[in-house]
Amino acid sequence: MKFKAFIGKLFSITLVTVSLSSFASEPIQPIERPADIDQSKAALGMKLFFDPRLSKSGFLSCNSCHNLSMGGSDNLKTSIGHNWQQGPINSPTVLNAGLSLAQFWDGRAATLKEQAGGPIANPVEMASSHKLVADVLKTIPQYRAEFQQVFGSPGIDIDRITDAIAEFEKTLVTPNSRFDRWLLGDTKAITARELAGYELFKSSGCTACHSGPAVGANSYHKLGLVRPYKTENAARGRIAVTGNKADEFVFKVPTLRNIELTYPYFHDGEVATLREAVALMGQLQLGRDFTADEVDKITAFLKTLTGDQPTFPLPLLPPSTEQTPQPEPFG
Amino acid sequence: MKFKAFIGKLFSITLVTVSLSSFASEPIQPIERPADIDQSKAALGMKLFFDPRLSKSGFLSCNSCHNLSMGGSDNLKTSIGHNWQQGPINSPTVLNAGLSLAQFWDGRAATLKEQAGGPIANPVEMASSHKLVADVLKTIPQYRAEFQQVFGSPGIDIDRITDAIAEFEKTLVTPNSRFDRWLLGDTKAITARELAGYELFKSSGCTACHSGPAVGANSYHKLGLVRPYKTENAARGRIAVTGNKADEFVFKVPTLRNIELTYPYFHDGEVATLREAVALMGQLQLGRDFTADEVDKITAFLKTLTGDQPTFPLPLLPPSTEQTPQPEPFG
Ligand code: HEC
Ligand code: HEC
Ligand code: HEC
Ligand code: HEC
Ligand SMILES: [Ca+2]
Ligand SMILES: [Ca+2]
Repeated sequence: MKFKAFIGKLFSITLVTVSLSSFASEPIQPIERPADIDQSKAALGMKLFFDPRLSKSGFLSCNSCHNLSMGGSDNLKTSIGHNWQQGPINSPTVLNAGLSLAQFWDGRAATLKEQAGGPIANPVEMASSHKLVADVLKTIPQYRAEFQQVFGSPGIDIDRITDAIAEFEKTLVTPNSRFDRWLLGDTKAITARELAGYELFKSSGCTACHSGPAVGANSYHKLGLVRPYKTENAARGRIAVTGNKADEFVFKVPTLRNIELTYPYFHDGEVATLREAVALMGQLQLGRDFTADEVDKITAFLKTLTGDQPTFPLPLLPPSTEQTPQPEPFG
Repeated sequence: MKFKAFIGKLFSITLVTVSLSSFASEPIQPIERPADIDQSKAALGMKLFFDPRLSKSGFLSCNSCHNLSMGGSDNLKTSIGHNWQQGPINSPTVLNAGLSLAQFWDGRAATLKEQAGGPIANPVEMASSHKLVADVLKTIPQYRAEFQQVFGSPGIDIDRITDAIAEFEKTLVTPNSRFDRWLLGDTKAITARELAGYELFKSSGCTACHSGPAVGANSYHKLGLVRPYKTENAARGRIAVTGNKADEFVFKVPTLRNIELTYPYFHDGEVATLREAVALMGQLQLGRDFTADEVDKITAFLKTLTGDQPTFPLPLLPPSTEQTPQPEPFG
C-alpha cells in the first residue's frame, strides 16, 4: 500500500556517521528519530489525532489545538475549546513532546499516554468522555478492524486509544535543524551571527535550564527567579501537583525546538514575539537586561532550532455508520 | 523538492483507453481529473485552504468545515462558525464542487472563485474581512514570495487569494469509484445487488435530477415536488437569488458522489442516514414509497460512488511575523 510505504519511509532512520566529539561538550544535543516505533500503531494513532469524533461536538480534534501545519500548537494566547470556551493556558507544541520529562506545563501527567486521556474528557477542551469516545469508535468497522490488527485482539477502549495516540506522538520529532547540522560538524550550517547568539545563550546562563536534545523540557524551574513575572493568568504551576508552596510559579521549562513556530510565548501566551520572550527571560531568570543587539543575536540562534517538520499524507478517516452516536455540537 | 514532486504526481493524469460505448448510453459519466491545473497556484491554494489565519479567530480554516479527512464536509447538521455560532445550513462537500453548475445550495455564486470570498467575510463563518486577510498574508515573507512566483508580480489581494483557493478546489475530484470502473467496462467492479440498485435508481426516475459526472449538481429542483418537506430551517432556496415565488424550496440538486461520506443529508442536515434520505427522496420527489429492500438496494448502489479521495501531504504553513495582525478569537 502506498500509505504504508510512506509511513515506512517516514519512520526510517537516517544513519549518519557522527564524530561524537563535535557535540559531546555542548549542552545541547541533536534530536534523533525514535528507533522503536510500532508503525501500524502509530498510523492508527495518527487517524485518532485527526479525528474530531473524539470530541462531543464532532468538530475538535487533537490537531485543532496542536495543528501540525503550524508547529504543533494553535498560535493563540489560550486555546479555544468546546462551545468556544476560552482555555486556561497556552497550548504547548506536541512536537518533540516525547522528549519531555513529563507532560503539561505543571508536569501533572507522567507520559504521553496518560496525557492523551485528559483533553478528551476535559469539559473546556473536547468535552467528551472516555466511554463515549470508545462507543463512537466501536461503531465504525474500519476502526474495529484496525484496533484488532494493531493490538492482536478485538476491543476498543480508552487504554488502547491513548496508547495509539501516544505512539503517533512519539514520531513527531523534528531532526535536522540547522543547529543540529552545526552540532554534527557542518560548520556552515549556521551564520557567524547565529553562532554568536548561541555563545551568548550559553555564557549568560540560558543553558542552565534550556539544555539537552529538546533544549529544555528536562527540568522544572520557577518563572520569575530573579524578578517577578506579572500575569492575570490563574495558573500557579507545579504547586497544583505537589501542594508544595515552594513550587508556586514553577513550570516545566519548555522546549525551545521550533520556537519560531510556537508563538505566542509563556504559559499565559501573553508574550507575542520571540524577541520579547528572550528579553524577558534575561530579566526574569537571570536579572540581566540584554541590549537590543544581544536580544537579536539570541533570537537569530533560536530560529536555527526549527527542524524538519513531520510530513505525511493527510489521514483519511473511516465514515460513521447508522449506529454511531451523533455528535452534539450545540447544547 | 519532495513536495513539488508529490504535487506533480497528484495532478498527473492517468490515461486510460476507454471504449466510449460502455457508458455513452448511461445517464451518469465517469469523473475525470481536470486537465488544465496550474500546479503551483493549486499548491498555494492548498496552503490557504488549510490556513486558519483566513479567519478572525486564527482558529477556523476552510478545512474546518470542509474537512478533507472526512469527505470534504464537517458531518454536522449545520456548521460551527466564529464564536461557535450555529450556521444556517448544512455544509456541502468541496469534493467535485468544480463540476457544479453554480456554488451554494441556492446557487448564488457562479464560480468557485466567487464562492471563496464568501466564508472569509461571513460573520457567522470566518468573520474576517477581505482586507484583513490580505493584510495578514502580506506580513509573511514566504507567502509574499509564493504569490509573486505564482502570479508573476508582487501583491496579495482577495482576487489572488480566491483564485488560488479555487485552483486547489478544482483538483478535489474523486475518480475511480467502483461505479466508474463499472461504467468503464469492469463488470466485476460492482455486485449484482448494487447493479440492481442502479437499475432501480434509473427506472424510478432519480436520474431525472441526479445525472452527469457529478450525479447531480447540474440543475435546480424543488425539494418536495410531490409531497412537501417539513423543516424548521429558514432557508428557502433559489427564491433568495431570483426573487421568483416559483423558486421557493428550489435547491441545487446535490452531487451524490461520495454520498456515503457526507452525512447528514439535505440542506438542513436533519436526515441522519443515507437510507432515510433515499426513502424520503422517493416520497418527496417521486411520490413513491420504496420497500425496505428497494431502499437498501439503492443505498448499496449509492455507496459505489465513493471515489479515490484527494491525498497529499498535510501542508506546512509559513509562520507569522512580528508585523502580522494578531488573531482575535475572543470578543
Ligand atoms: C481545546 C484545545 C486542545 C485540544 C482539543 C487538545 N489539546 Fe492538548 N493541550 C492543550 C492545552 C491548552 C495544553 C496545556 C495544558 C496544561 O499544561 O495545563 C495541552 C497540552 C498537551 C500536551 C502536553 C505538551 C507539553 O509539552 O506539556 C500534549 C502532549 C497534548 N496536549 C496532546 C493532545 C492530544 C493527544 C489531544 C487529543 C486527544 C489534545 N492534546 C487535545 C489544548 C488542547
Ligand atoms: C532558571 C530557569 C531558566 C533560565 C535560566 C532561562 N529560562 Fe527560559 N524558560 C524557563 C521557564 C520555566 C519558562 C516557562 C515560562 C512560563 O511558564 O511561561 C521559560 C520560557 C522560555 C521561552 C518561551 C518558551 C515558550 O514556548 O513559551 C523562551 C523563548 C525562553 N525561555 C528562552 C530563554 C532564554 C533566551 C534564556 C536566557 C536568556 C532563558 N530562557 C533562561 C526557565 C528558564
Ligand atoms: C464555518 C463553516 C465554514 C467555513 C469556515 C467555510 N465554509 Fe464553505 N460552506 C459552509 C456552508 C454552511 C456552506 C453552504 C452555504 C450555503 O449554501 O448557503 C458552504 C459552501 C461552500 C461551497 C459550495 C459547495 C456547493 O456545492 O455548493 C464551497 C465550494 C465552499 N463552501 C468552500 C469553502 C472555502 C474555500 C472556504 C474557506 C475560504 C470555506 N468554504 C469556509 C461552511 C463553511
Ligand atoms: C425532481 C428532482 C429530484 C429527484 C427526482 C430526486 N432528487 Fe434527490 N435531491 C434533489 C434535491 C433538490 C435535493 C436537495 C434537497 C435539499 O435541499 O435538502 C436532493 C437530495 C438528495 C439526497 C441528499 C444529498 C445530500 O447531500 O444531502 C440524496 C441521497 C438523494 N437526493 C437521492 C435521490 C434518490 C435516490 C432519488 C430517487 C429515488 C432522488 N434523489 C430523486 C432532487 C431530486
Ligand atoms: Ca506557545
Ligand atoms: Ca451533508
